[in-house]
Amino acid sequence: MSTLLAPASVGPRRGIRSAGNCLALPEARWNSRFLKATRGEAVDRTPIWLMRQAGRYMQHYRGIRAGTSFLDLCKDPARATEVTVFAQEWLGVDAAIIFSDILVVLQALGMPLEFVGGEGPHLPQPIRGPSDVDALRDPLQAAADLDYVYQAIRQTSAALAPDIPLIGFCGAPFTLASYALEGGSSRQFAKTKAFMYREPDAWHRLSARLAATCAHYLNHQVAAGASCLQIFDSWVGNLTRDDFREFVAPHLATLVSHVVDGVPVILFGTNTGHLIDLIRDCGADVVGLDGTVELGDARDLLGTQVAVQGNLDPTLLFAPQDRLAAATRDVLAQNAGRPGHIFNLAHGVLKETDPEQARYLVELVHGG
Amino acid sequence: MSTLLAPASVGPRRGIRSAGNCLALPEARWNSRFLKATRGEAVDRTPIWLMRQAGRYMQHYRGIRAGTSFLDLCKDPARATEVTVFAQEWLGVDAAIIFSDILVVLQALGMPLEFVGGEGPHLPQPIRGPSDVDALRDPLQAAADLDYVYQAIRQTSAALAPDIPLIGFCGAPFTLASYALEGGSSRQFAKTKAFMYREPDAWHRLSARLAATCAHYLNHQVAAGASCLQIFDSWVGNLTRDDFREFVAPHLATLVSHVVDGVPVILFGTNTGHLIDLIRDCGADVVGLDGTVELGDARDLLGTQVAVQGNLDPTLLFAPQDRLAAATRDVLAQNAGRPGHIFNLAHGVLKETDPEQARYLVELVHGG
Repeated sequence: MSTLLAPASVGPRRGIRSAGNCLALPEARWNSRFLKATRGEAVDRTPIWLMRQAGRYMQHYRGIRAGTSFLDLCKDPARATEVTVFAQEWLGVDAAIIFSDILVVLQALGMPLEFVGGEGPHLPQPIRGPSDVDALRDPLQAAADLDYVYQAIRQTSAALAPDIPLIGFCGAPFTLASYALEGGSSRQFAKTKAFMYREPDAWHRLSARLAATCAHYLNHQVAAGASCLQIFDSWVGNLTRDDFREFVAPHLATLVSHVVDGVPVILFGTNTGHLIDLIRDCGADVVGLDGTVELGDARDLLGTQVAVQGNLDPTLLFAPQDRLAAATRDVLAQNAGRPGHIFNLAHGVLKETDPEQARYLVELVHGG
Repeated sequence: MSTLLAPASVGPRRGIRSAGNCLALPEARWNSRFLKATRGEAVDRTPIWLMRQAGRYMQHYRGIRAGTSFLDLCKDPARATEVTVFAQEWLGVDAAIIFSDILVVLQALGMPLEFVGGEGPHLPQPIRGPSDVDALRDPLQAAADLDYVYQAIRQTSAALAPDIPLIGFCGAPFTLASYALEGGSSRQFAKTKAFMYREPDAWHRLSARLAATCAHYLNHQVAAGASCLQIFDSWVGNLTRDDFREFVAPHLATLVSHVVDGVPVILFGTNTGHLIDLIRDCGADVVGLDGTVELGDARDLLGTQVAVQGNLDPTLLFAPQDRLAAATRDVLAQNAGRPGHIFNLAHGVLKETDPEQARYLVELVHGG
């Protein structure tokens, strides 16, 4: 395939600090609390946003969503913009993240995709063997077909306050491959790992195609107005360190290395406490931390050249306010004032969450 | 409740080494490769068994199971014995584990339980509030009602070769509580954690009742012929260290401390790489390791006073034999000949596994 990308050697890419504001972002956005923190610069207050901050837990979202499928909402730039901007403003968080789903990339690569009410994604024609990998569409074409995402980003970037950056995102090659192979969510990833171990050549071809598609996709998002990118390797925590090194790291590093200069990249996955140094070495500017690691320990391990994001357990939003406040203070105390901390949950907001509790959390973090 | 147990201070219980063979086990069993390894004594070869070694991946099991519900099989001592012994003998592993399920304890405590074909457990009357906790049955009575398990253990212990120990088991308080509160399996444990944070008194009462029931249950198992015990805290890896300390450790330590002397206790949970030192401190004789930690690192962290069990990723049984062999050798190399290592998978055998691959793994480990 002519549109695949040259592989990167695994290791940190050129720092975002040295690139400067080569995107010519408005001054207020470039110097926003959030983007400064991604670059490890000093900030007045710890910035915070929440993974899945626009979602089913919010009445506003449920109103906009009513009568529409999840996927149709993703494909409607006006309404995607509306839920994205509303969540940022209502919560008072320091960044917005475009409302979308990581699986639109698989659909653009030619895989049928449906969301069956409440049960999560279903891919009725999963990848069964190497020939299915080679039958996927071309990365450049797939990325070009996701224009509805770029439209939503353009509209959202314009609608947000000047000092609020918009985060674009995609799934990482491993996590996308797991959906493509399992046909949906999984607990054990039996099909994914069987394919990885038995068909390593096809695995690497699949991962390379996903990395190429996502690199084009992310750079289109930047061109449309995203000024930070998060790569969700949601399920990679199911791998051992050895398997991460062999089957994941080269492709993740390639993807990150092809993101345009000056745009910070956040790498995040759940249950990745045992992988965070390897994730950093794939070129992350910010390592997303989940609940399997204490933030202070993570910072000690990762060193001063990388920022971190996290990591309050989202179920603490179910707790009484005094417990929520104590746990929030503990996360902040673990960071101990080091620059380069973005407050977030350890994973996405749960649908059972009281929105007022989420807003209270934002106040707590901003209050310091 | 008069039958609750006195709490233990968190910390290692009296070592099994000093207790000696107070169970008056047959010499061959007491000095078996497996039990020696649990005590940290030198062995001729690394012992191995596999979590869920008797299960759906085996044709023999499917034959015995045909036409019977999973729960009925658990409650039929003759057939539970048959699948337990067959798996041990066919695989050539160094220990048997009694065929049963952790949820029979909740049923004995008065909660209706069903297994809906292929979809896992369902508890149609989950715990909704503190009053449901107090309505659970008495721990001593509940443990007494599990006589079918003790019968199966008695028959199995007699049927096994004299040098093959039988492992009894139970679920840990946290994991059992999560099923009782969620009504089944869960990914996010939203109801469990909401209850834990909002109703801490009821949480501790529930955990104490589960710990008391399990302590009686385990000691009955020992009396029936189990010479080692594994406590499955399968889902505790979803907790942070702070929450583990506050909501889990006291009850797990109480449970372990009430196990009769001379019987090694293995504590195991998935995604627990960030908790293993805290798990050790609950009194484990053997810490079960999953794939989120490298065995060598775990041994360095845990020190010489505790044995470890693990930790080959079960999906490696899908790999070609050369990769399986290399990964097996790597686990053994990480142990570096230290006494007190029991080889096992990082979690249970997956149903898609080729039994011949499992048997090949046993040969590999015994070949060293």
